[in-house]
Amino acid sequence: MAVYTHLSAETLSDLISKYDVGTLISAKGIAEGISNSNWLIETTQGRFILTMYERRIDISELPYFLNLLDHLAERDCPVPATIHDRNGAAYSQIDGKAVALIEFLPGVSIDTPNTAQAYAVGEALAAIHIASEDYPARRKNDLRPKDWQGLFDQCGSDRIAMIDPHLAEIVAEHLPSLLAEWPDDLPVATIHADLFPDNVLMLNDRVSGLIDFYFACTDFAAYDLAVTHAAWCFTGDGRVFNPSLSKALIAGYQSRRILNDAERDALPMLGKGAAMRFVATRTFDWIDTPDDALVTRKDPMDFARRLQFYAESGADAFSL
Amino acid sequence: MAVYTHLSAETLSDLISKYDVGTLISAKGIAEGISNSNWLIETTQGRFILTMYERRIDISELPYFLNLLDHLAERDCPVPATIHDRNGAAYSQIDGKAVALIEFLPGVSIDTPNTAQAYAVGEALAAIHIASEDYPARRKNDLRPKDWQGLFDQCGSDRIAMIDPHLAEIVAEHLPSLLAEWPDDLPVATIHADLFPDNVLMLNDRVSGLIDFYFACTDFAAYDLAVTHAAWCFTGDGRVFNPSLSKALIAGYQSRRILNDAERDALPMLGKGAAMRFVATRTFDWIDTPDDALVTRKDPMDFARRLQFYAESGADAFSL
Repeated sequence: MAVYTHLSAETLSDLISKYDVGTLISAKGIAEGISNSNWLIETTQGRFILTMYERRIDISELPYFLNLLDHLAERDCPVPATIHDRNGAAYSQIDGKAVALIEFLPGVSIDTPNTAQAYAVGEALAAIHIASEDYPARRKNDLRPKDWQGLFDQCGSDRIAMIDPHLAEIVAEHLPSLLAEWPDDLPVATIHADLFPDNVLMLNDRVSGLIDFYFACTDFAAYDLAVTHAAWCFTGDGRVFNPSLSKALIAGYQSRRILNDAERDALPMLGKGAAMRFVATRTFDWIDTPDDALVTRKDPMDFARRLQFYAESGADAFSL
Repeated sequence: MAVYTHLSAETLSDLISKYDVGTLISAKGIAEGISNSNWLIETTQGRFILTMYERRIDISELPYFLNLLDHLAERDCPVPATIHDRNGAAYSQIDGKAVALIEFLPGVSIDTPNTAQAYAVGEALAAIHIASEDYPARRKNDLRPKDWQGLFDQCGSDRIAMIDPHLAEIVAEHLPSLLAEWPDDLPVATIHADLFPDNVLMLNDRVSGLIDFYFACTDFAAYDLAVTHAAWCFTGDGRVFNPSLSKALIAGYQSRRILNDAERDALPMLGKGAAMRFVATRTFDWIDTPDDALVTRKDPMDFARRLQFYAESGADAFSL
C-alpha cells in the first residue's frame, strides 16, 4: 500500500502529453495496490488513475487485463476503461516499467457492507461473468488447488505451525479432499477472482466501480461467487458468518445469472476452496514478508476460520 | 510517505457530514507527509485534503498552523484554507487523533525547477512573510542552532561517522561558529521554514500552492529565504550550485520584499545554518530510522555538501 517509484512532474507531464486527455493539473501518489504504484491524476479534461506495474505482473499478460477492462466497460459494467494513447497503445513504459492510464471512478470501499450493498455486489459480479462471455482471451488461473499445495510446500509445516498451531492442522485436514474432489466441469467465465470489499467502489448502495482485475482469469463462475462470498459475508476477522449478507449476495448474483444445479451443489466445496486459496497466499506472504516490511501482513487464520465454517456448515452457508 | 491509519468509508462519511461540503464521493489515501496521513477527498461539492496528525505535532499547536493557513488564504496567498465544521471547529478527533479538512489545491511539485519557477517561489515566500505581519500568534522555532547541537549530541560522533567519515568533520568545522555568531537582531516574520520543492505546487511557472506548514514558526525572514535557497538552488544531490536559480529566487523574493543591509550581510551565515539544520535532522533521522523502515531516509551528506559550498563561496552564493 505505497508508491514504490518517484515520478517527477516533468515525467508525468511528458507521459500525459502522449494521451488526448488535456494537460496535467495534479498528481497524487495514492496508497492502493500491493504490487503496483498508483497516482490519482487530474488533467484539464478529467481525472484518471495511472498505474505502474512494479512486480508480480508479467508484462506479456497486461493486454489480457487491460483489454478485459475495455471489453467490460464497453458492455456497461462499472469498470474503469483503459485510456489509449494517441498511437492506440494501452500501456507504455517508463524506465523499463509498464504504466497504464485508466479511468477514475467515483465511490468508496465499504468496510461493513449492508445487505443492499451485498446484493449489488452479487449483481455486478454476475454482470461481468455475462459480459465477458464473448471476451476472446483466456488466462489460466495460477492459484488452483495444486498451486495452493505448492505454496504450503514452499512454506514447510514447521514454519506454518509457527504462525498458529492450528493452521497446519486445518490445512492438513482439508487440502487433500480439495485436491481430490475439486470439480472440473462447471461453467467457465472470465472471473475477477479477488473481489474483496477494497476492490469494489460504492456510492451508497450502488456499485460504482469494480477495480484491480490483476488476478482475473478463466475459471468457474461459481468459484468467483464463492471467493466473493468468503470475502464479504463474514465479520470480526472471519469469526462471524452473516447469513443475511450471504443470502443477499447470492440473490443479487442470481438476479442476473441463475446458478445451475451442478454449481449450486459445488458451492460448499468451492467455498472451502476459496477460503483455502487465501489461507495459502496469506501463509506464503506471511512467511515471505519480514516482520517490519512496508506491506501489512494479513493473518491467514482469518480465512482458516472461514474454511472451518464452510466445512462445518456445508450447503447451509449458501442457503437462500 | 504513507497512510498510517485505516479510516473506513463509514467513518469518513460521518466525518464529512459534520462539514457543509456535500456528501462523500471518493476518498484516496495519498502518499504525502512524513508524520501525517492524508486523504484526497471528493464530495458532491469539491475536493479536499483530509489530514490526520499521527505524531510529532502537538495538538495544542494545531490552532497555530491551521489559523495561519486561514490568515494567509484570506490575504490571497496560495495556501489551502482550513475548512471549518458546522460548529466552527478547525479540527476534530477520530480515535484520539486530530484530523483537519483543508482545501485541495491544484498543481504539481517540480523536481528540476527553471528560473521562472524559482522567481515565482521567491515571490510567494515574500508574500507569506508580508501577509503574516499581522498574524498575531507566535511560535518558537525549535530547530535553531542549539537544537542542531542537541540533535548531534544525541547521535554521538561515532554513529555520525558511520554515516559518512566526512560528516562529523564538517559538523565539527562549522557548528561552533554558527552557535557563536548566529544573528539575533534580524527582521522577524512568520516563516514556512521547510519550503522544499515538494511543498510547492505549480501550474507551469505559477505557484498554485504552498503546503505543509507544520514547521512554520516565528523567526528571521531572511533565514526562510536561506532555507528555500538551500532547498531549490542545487542539483545533483547538492553537488552543483545553480547561480541562475539563486539569482531568480532572490530577485523574485525582492520583487515583493527588499532585504535590508543586515539581512543581506547575514545571508552567507544563514545559508550555512539552513544547510546545517537539514544536516542535523537528517543525521538524527538516519540514525533513528531502521534500515528497512517505512520512511525513505534522506542522506545528510546532500546538505553537508551545500554547507561546504556556502562556507566556501560566502556572499557569492547570494549575488544578484
